[in-house]
Amino acid sequence: MRAAVIHEPGKVSVETVPDPTPGPRDVVVGVAACGICGTDLHIADGEFAPSLPIIPGHEFAGEVVEIGSDVTEVRVGDKVAVDPSLFCGECHFCKLGRGNLCDNWAAIGVSKAGGAAEFALAPVKNLSVLPEGVRLEDAALIEPLSCVVRGFDVLSARVGQHILIYGAGTMGLLNLQMAVRTGAASVSVVDTNAGRLATATKLGATAVATSAAELDRPLGWEIVIDCTGVVAAIEDGFSRTRKGGTFLQFGVSNEDAVAKFSPFRIYNQEITIVGSMAVLHSYPRAAELFAAGFVDADTIITDRLPLEQYPAALDAFRGGKGLKTQVLPRG
Amino acid sequence: MRAAVIHEPGKVSVETVPDPTPGPRDVVVGVAACGICGTDLHIADGEFAPSLPIIPGHEFAGEVVEIGSDVTEVRVGDKVAVDPSLFCGECHFCKLGRGNLCDNWAAIGVSKAGGAAEFALAPVKNLSVLPEGVRLEDAALIEPLSCVVRGFDVLSARVGQHILIYGAGTMGLLNLQMAVRTGAASVSVVDTNAGRLATATKLGATAVATSAAELDRPLGWEIVIDCTGVVAAIEDGFSRTRKGGTFLQFGVSNEDAVAKFSPFRIYNQEITIVGSMAVLHSYPRAAELFAAGFVDADTIITDRLPLEQYPAALDAFRGGKGLKTQVLPRG
Amino acid sequence: MRAAVIHEPGKVSVETVPDPTPGPRDVVVGVAACGICGTDLHIADGEFAPSLPIIPGHEFAGEVVEIGSDVTEVRVGDKVAVDPSLFCGECHFCKLGRGNLCDNWAAIGVSKAGGAAEFALAPVKNLSVLPEGVRLEDAALIEPLSCVVRGFDVLSARVGQHILIYGAGTMGLLNLQMAVRTGAASVSVVDTNAGRLATATKLGATAVATSAAELDRPLGWEIVIDCTGVVAAIEDGFSRTRKGGTFLQFGVSNEDAVAKFSPFRIYNQEITIVGSMAVLHSYPRAAELFAAGFVDADTIITDRLPLEQYPAALDAFRGGKGLKTQVLPRG
Amino acid sequence: MRAAVIHEPGKVSVETVPDPTPGPRDVVVGVAACGICGTDLHIADGEFAPSLPIIPGHEFAGEVVEIGSDVTEVRVGDKVAVDPSLFCGECHFCKLGRGNLCDNWAAIGVSKAGGAAEFALAPVKNLSVLPEGVRLEDAALIEPLSCVVRGFDVLSARVGQHILIYGAGTMGLLNLQMAVRTGAASVSVVDTNAGRLATATKLGATAVATSAAELDRPLGWEIVIDCTGVVAAIEDGFSRTRKGGTFLQFGVSNEDAVAKFSPFRIYNQEITIVGSMAVLHSYPRAAELFAAGFVDADTIITDRLPLEQYPAALDAFRGGKGLKTQVLPRG
Ligand SMILES: NC(=O)c1ccc[n+]([C@@H]2O[C@H](COP(=O)([O-])OP(=O)(O)OC[C@H]3O[C@@H](n4cnc5c(N)ncnc54)[C@H](OP(=O)(O)O)[C@@H]3O)[C@@H](O)[C@H]2O)c1
Ligand SMILES: NC(=O)c1ccc[n+]([C@@H]2O[C@H](COP(=O)([O-])OP(=O)(O)OC[C@H]3O[C@@H](n4cnc5c(N)ncnc54)[C@H](OP(=O)(O)O)[C@@H]3O)[C@@H](O)[C@H]2O)c1
Ligand SMILES: NC(=O)c1ccc[n+]([C@@H]2O[C@H](COP(=O)([O-])OP(=O)(O)OC[C@H]3O[C@@H](n4cnc5c(N)ncnc54)[C@H](OP(=O)(O)O)[C@@H]3O)[C@@H](O)[C@H]2O)c1
Ligand SMILES: NC(=O)c1ccc[n+]([C@@H]2O[C@H](COP(=O)([O-])OP(=O)(O)OC[C@H]3O[C@@H](n4cnc5c(N)ncnc54)[C@H](OP(=O)(O)O)[C@@H]3O)[C@@H](O)[C@H]2O)c1
Ligand SMILES: [Zn+2]
Ligand SMILES: [Zn+2]
Ligand SMILES: [Zn+2]
Ligand SMILES: [Zn+2]
Repeated sequence: MRAAVIHEPGKVSVETVPDPTPGPRDVVVGVAACGICGTDLHIADGEFAPSLPIIPGHEFAGEVVEIGSDVTEVRVGDKVAVDPSLFCGECHFCKLGRGNLCDNWAAIGVSKAGGAAEFALAPVKNLSVLPEGVRLEDAALIEPLSCVVRGFDVLSARVGQHILIYGAGTMGLLNLQMAVRTGAASVSVVDTNAGRLATATKLGATAVATSAAELDRPLGWEIVIDCTGVVAAIEDGFSRTRKGGTFLQFGVSNEDAVAKFSPFRIYNQEITIVGSMAVLHSYPRAAELFAAGFVDADTIITDRLPLEQYPAALDAFRGGKGLKTQVLPRG
Repeated sequence: MRAAVIHEPGKVSVETVPDPTPGPRDVVVGVAACGICGTDLHIADGEFAPSLPIIPGHEFAGEVVEIGSDVTEVRVGDKVAVDPSLFCGECHFCKLGRGNLCDNWAAIGVSKAGGAAEFALAPVKNLSVLPEGVRLEDAALIEPLSCVVRGFDVLSARVGQHILIYGAGTMGLLNLQMAVRTGAASVSVVDTNAGRLATATKLGATAVATSAAELDRPLGWEIVIDCTGVVAAIEDGFSRTRKGGTFLQFGVSNEDAVAKFSPFRIYNQEITIVGSMAVLHSYPRAAELFAAGFVDADTIITDRLPLEQYPAALDAFRGGKGLKTQVLPRG
Repeated sequence: MRAAVIHEPGKVSVETVPDPTPGPRDVVVGVAACGICGTDLHIADGEFAPSLPIIPGHEFAGEVVEIGSDVTEVRVGDKVAVDPSLFCGECHFCKLGRGNLCDNWAAIGVSKAGGAAEFALAPVKNLSVLPEGVRLEDAALIEPLSCVVRGFDVLSARVGQHILIYGAGTMGLLNLQMAVRTGAASVSVVDTNAGRLATATKLGATAVATSAAELDRPLGWEIVIDCTGVVAAIEDGFSRTRKGGTFLQFGVSNEDAVAKFSPFRIYNQEITIVGSMAVLHSYPRAAELFAAGFVDADTIITDRLPLEQYPAALDAFRGGKGLKTQVLPRG
Repeated sequence: MRAAVIHEPGKVSVETVPDPTPGPRDVVVGVAACGICGTDLHIADGEFAPSLPIIPGHEFAGEVVEIGSDVTEVRVGDKVAVDPSLFCGECHFCKLGRGNLCDNWAAIGVSKAGGAAEFALAPVKNLSVLPEGVRLEDAALIEPLSCVVRGFDVLSARVGQHILIYGAGTMGLLNLQMAVRTGAASVSVVDTNAGRLATATKLGATAVATSAAELDRPLGWEIVIDCTGVVAAIEDGFSRTRKGGTFLQFGVSNEDAVAKFSPFRIYNQEITIVGSMAVLHSYPRAAELFAAGFVDADTIITDRLPLEQYPAALDAFRGGKGLKTQVLPRG
C-alpha cells in the first residue's frame, strides 16, 4: 500500500510499504481521511520521539476492509472511526482508570503505524462504528472532538455559565462548538489572529475579540479555556477567571514554559485550575455526538489533499493559513 | 389593585385588594404574566395548605414599579423575573447550602401574596434583571426553567449520553429543551398522551412514542427523567435505565405513592436514583439561559387569559388540553 | 498441588490437580490464606453459574513463587495480594472506565481457577505488592476491603456526616471500620443478630441496636448503607435516610427481590440511592489502607482451617456463627 | 464588660465597654475562650481594613447568657460555638451557594464586635450547640477546624491516597488531623521549622521532614496541601503533586505574591489546583467532628492568657513560638 513515512526528523516521504496484516483481534481500516495536527509536526520535526521510521496519523476514519480471526463486533464494509489510544492497561494509572496518564502511553500514529496510509491496523476495541449517513472524511474529526469531550468531562460544568475561549484554531473552535451545545449562557472567543474570529462567530460565538480586554465582562468568566498553549494567553485567561470559576488548560505549552499565577487569588477566590490531556473514555461519546451533527465539518476542514501530497500537507498545516488539513488516501 | 384570591378550597375570585407596600429591601413588580402550574391547583383544591386567603402565582415576570428605601440594585422600569423561593436561611439545610430542603420552606405565591395580581412584592435579592430584548410575558417561564436547571445540576451528566424523558407536558418539554442543548447524544420522549408527541418532535426530540417499548434501545438509556409523577412511568423508567445510568425523579408523585425497584439491580448495575426539588441556586442561571434563547416560549405557552379570568384559567389548566396557561394582569 | 474443586452443585472436594503454569505476564502465587464469602456459597450451591469444575477462591494473598517470562514488576518471594477482577477491557463499559460493569465480567475464583489451592495464577497487573510487616493471612481481607473502597468512592461523602449501617457481618464491619476512619461524625450499626453488635462496638461504632428504631435519631442519617441484602433492612434504611441524604445499596439481594420506595420523598427530599458493585480502581488503594492498619483482622477473621477442610469451611461459613472463614493452604 | 479593642493600627487595649444588647434573633455568648490567628494580627497591624475601632476575635465558644426576643433554638446556659461568617445572602455568590465568596463579606470579630471580650453577640443561626461533655475553651478550635472542613470539601478526595502537607502550624496540624481521620493512605508533613515536626509526628504524621526532598516519594503525592502561604513551599508542593493529583492552596499568601507553574504539566499530567477560603457550610459539621473528638486540643492550644493580657497574647502569637494562643475572658 501507499503510506506516508517519517524516516527521521525532517525526512518525510510517501512510498509503497507492505499491507498490514491483522492479528486475531485487529481490524484493517481502509482510510478515507486522515487529519494532521501539531503532534504530527512534532514527530516530523523530531521534537517528540517515537522510534522511527513511523507511518504518522492518529486522526482517521474509514471502512473496515479486513477483520482478524477473532473479530465479531464489526464486518467488512462498516464505517468506523478509530480511537488511537493504546493504554497499557497494567500501570498504576491504568488501574486507577486514568489511562490517558498511562506510564507506558502509546498511540496509533505515534508509537505504531497510523492512518496516513491506504490501510491502517487497529485493535477492534478502538473502533467506533458510525451510522450510515455519516460522511467518512469528516469523521476524522472525531479524534480531536474526543479530546474536547475529555476537557468537558474534566470541567463537569454546571449549565448557565459564561465561557471564554483563547484560540480559534481547530481546537478552540471545537471547544466553542461543544460549549454552545452544552448549556453555556454565552461563549466568547479571543484570538490574536483576527482572521479567525469570523469563523468563531459563524460557529456560534456570542462575542469575539483579538483581546479579552475588549470584551465587556469586568467580573470575568466562570469558565476560561486556553486553546493556545501560549503563556501570554494562559496568564491573561487566569486573571479573567471569575471568582469561584475554573480555568482549563487544554492548549499544549512547551515543556519548559512557565506561567505565573497569584496563589492569593486561588485561595481567596477559590479559583480552580484543571488540565485535560488527550482522550479518556471519551472517544465513543465523541463518535455519537459527531454522528448527531455536533460539528460543522465543512467549516473546520479547510484543506484536503491526496495522500501523495502528505509532505505538502504538513507544510500547509505548518503555514497555519487554514484550519484542519487532511490527506485523503483514496484520492 | 386587582388580584386573584383563593379564600378557601374551591373558592377563587378576582377582586380589588390594597396595593402592596415595599419594605426597605423589597421591590414592587408590575406583573406582565403569571403562569399556572400544578401547585396552584393543589392550593385551590386544598391539598396543599398555606394559610388562606392567599394571592397565588409563583411563576411571574414584570417591570419594577416601585422600590424600597434601601434598594439600589434595580430601578423603576427594569424588566425582572422573580425567584419565588423564600428560604429561611437559618435552618440546618439552609446552613448546608440546600435551601430548597429548608425546614421552613416558603415561597411567594404559596406562603405570601404572589403574582396573580397587578402588582407583586418581592425581596430585591429574588429578582433577576432581564436584558432589553426579552418578551416579559415569556419570562414567566424562567421559574419552571429554574427547576429544570436544578434537575440538571443534580444530574451533573457527562456529555454524549442518551436521555429518555417520560411526560411531554410543560415540564417534560422544558427538560427536553435543556437536554438537547446540553450535549445529549439523543433525547427521546414518551407520553401516553399521543397528542403531545408532535410538540416534542418540534422541540428537538430524537424519537417519541406513547410507550418506551416502541423505542428501539434494548440496553436502555444512560439518563431517564420522570416528568409525570406517575408510578407506572417511574417503574418503567427505572427498568429502562442503562447499566451504570441515572434515574431522575423530577415529577411529583402523590405523597403516599409507592414504587417498586430491584435492589439487586441498584447494586449489580450501579444504578443511581436522584431527585430534584424546585429551585436551588438555579434561578439566575435560568434567567440567563432564557435570555439567551434556550426556550421556545411560543410553543410552550398555549393559553393567555386576562387576570380577570383567573378561575377560568385554572379550569383550562385542569382540563389539560394545552401546555402552559398564563394570566396577563395588564390585559 | 492440592486444591478445592467444585465439580457440580453440592459436590466439593479437595484433591490433587496439576500445578499452574504461568503465561508470559502471569505470576504464580503460593497462597497463604483464602477467604470464603457468599459468592463461593452461590457457586457451590449452583445458584451462580461459571463453567464447572472450578477451583474457587477470589479473596487471597500469598507469596510469589514463580513469574512468567515477561514479568519484571515482582520477584519470587514478594508478598502480594490479588485483585480477582478480570475485566475484558473491550466492551462498552470497560471503555467508559466502568470495568466492574463489564459485559464479559469474569474473575479469578469465579470464571478461572482461584485461591482455594496451594498455588494460584494471576496476571501481574492484578497484584498489589505488600510491605514487609504485613501478615499475609490477614491480607486476604484486602479483596472485601476493596469492595468497601468502591462503595466509598461511589458515596464520595463529605466529612462530618452521620452514617447508619445495616448488617454487622464481615462486610458491615468493614464498612464500619472505613466509616470511622473517613470522617463520619458518628457511625451506628444495626443487626438483627444481637450477638454481632458487641463486635461492632469494639470496632468503633458510636451506637448499635437490633432495630434502628431504638437509635435516637428521628431526622435520620445523612448516609445509610445496607450490608444485608435483605428487603426489610433496605426499606427501613431508605425510610431513615435524612432529607438530602444518600442510601447505598451494598448488600446483594436476590435477583428477584423487590423493594418499595416513595418517589415523592426522592423528589421532595432529594434523596439519592446509589449502588456499589465489587471492585473498581479500588484494589491498590485497599492494599495501601490495609498495609496502613485500617482493618482489625484479628476481630474479623474468626475461623482458620487447613485447605483440606474446605468443605467444612464452607459449612462453617454457611452456619453463620463466626465472621470471616479462611482456609490456609500452607497448613 | 471588659473587651479588647483595636483603636487604630498598632493601638490595642483592654477596656470597659457597654455590654451588648441582643436584637430579636441574636444571642449573647459569655465567651469562654477566644483564639488568635493571623487575621487578628493583620487587623491590629492595619494590613486588613475593617472600620475601626473594633473588638477582635472570630474564634470563640462560650455559654449562652441572654437571648433575643424571637430566639427559641437555644437557652441560657447552652454551650455554643460561633460561626463568625456574616454572608449578605443577597449577592451573586450568596445566591449561588458560595457565601464564602460573598461580595459583601463580613464576619464577627472582623466587621462587627468579636469574641475578645466577656460577652459577644451573634445571630442565633451562627451558633452550634455543643454536647455536655465538651470543654468549652477547646471549642474555640471549631472555627479553624471549619476552615479545614471546607478545604476537604473542596478536595473531595477519594480514600487511600497519599497526602503531603506544607506547614506544621495550627492550620497544618489541623489539616493533618483531618487527613489521618479521613482515609489517607499516608500523611507526610514538611516544615522548615524543625521544632514543629515532633508535634506532627505525635498527631499521626506518617513521615516528617524539613524538606520534602528528604521524603522518599519520587512519584509525588496524590494530594498536596499548602498551609504556609509561602511561595517557595507552594512551588515545591506543586512540583511534587503526582500525575493526576490535586494541589490545595489553603495557606494565605500576600496579595501580590506570584508563584510559577508549568502549564505543560497541568495539561499533560492533568494536575488540578484548587483553593479553599474560610468557612462554607462547614461550621456545623466541624462542631460535630470536634465533639466527636477529632482534634487533640491539648496539643494545639499552647498558650492561654487572661483577656486582660490580650496585647501580650498578640505578641506571643506574633513571636510564633507556640501554636494556638487563646485569651480566656473568664479568667
Ligand atoms: N488537550 C488536548 O487533548 C489537546 C488535543 C489537541 C490539541 N491540543 C492543543 O490545543 C492547542 C490548539 O490547537 P490548534 O490546532 O487549534 O492550534 P492553532 O491552530 O495553532 O490555534 C491556536 C490559535 O491561538 C492563537 N493565539 C496565539 N497566541 C494567542 C494569544 N496570546 N491570545 C489569543 N490567541 C492566541 C493563534 O494565533 P496565531 O495563529 O496568530 O498564533 C491561533 O489562531 C494547541 O496547543 C494544541 O497542541 C490539545
Ligand atoms: N421537580 C420540580 O422541581 C418540579 C417543578 C415543577 C413541576 N414538577 C412536576 O413535574 C411533573 C410534570 O409537570 P407538567 O406540568 O409537565 O405536567 P403535565 O402537563 O401533567 O404533564 C405530564 C404528562 O405525562 C403524561 N403521562 C402520564 N402518565 C404517563 C405514563 N405512564 N407514561 C408517559 N407519560 C405519562 C401525561 O399524559 P396525560 O395528560 O394523558 O395524563 C402528561 O402529558 C408534575 O408531576 C409536576 O408536579 C416538578
Ligand atoms: N457490594 C459489594 O461489592 C459486595 C461485596 C461483598 C459482599 N457483598 C454483600 O454484602 C452483604 C453482607 O455480606 P456479609 O458477608 O457481611 O453477610 P452476613 O455475614 O450474612 O451479614 C449480614 C448481617 O445482616 C444481618 N441482617 C439480616 N437481616 C437484617 C435486618 N433486617 N436488619 C439488620 N440486620 C439484618 C444478618 O443477621 P442474621 O445473621 O441474623 O441473618 C447478618 O448478621 C451480602 O449481601 C453480600 O453479598 C457486597
Ligand atoms: N484557607 C483558610 O481558610 C485559612 C484559614 C486559616 C488560616 N489560613 C492560612 O493557613 C496558613 C497557616 O496558618 P498557621 O496559623 O498554621 O500559620 P503558621 O503558624 O505561621 O504556620 C506556618 C508554618 O509553615 C512553615 N513554613 C514557612 N515556610 C515554609 C516552607 N517553605 N516550607 C515548609 N514550611 C514552611 C512556618 O515555619 P516558620 O515558622 O519557620 O516560618 C510555620 O511553621 C496561613 O497562611 C494562614 O493565613 C487559611
Ligand atoms: Zn498504563
Ligand atoms: Zn431554612
Ligand atoms: Zn468489559
Ligand atoms: Zn453575599
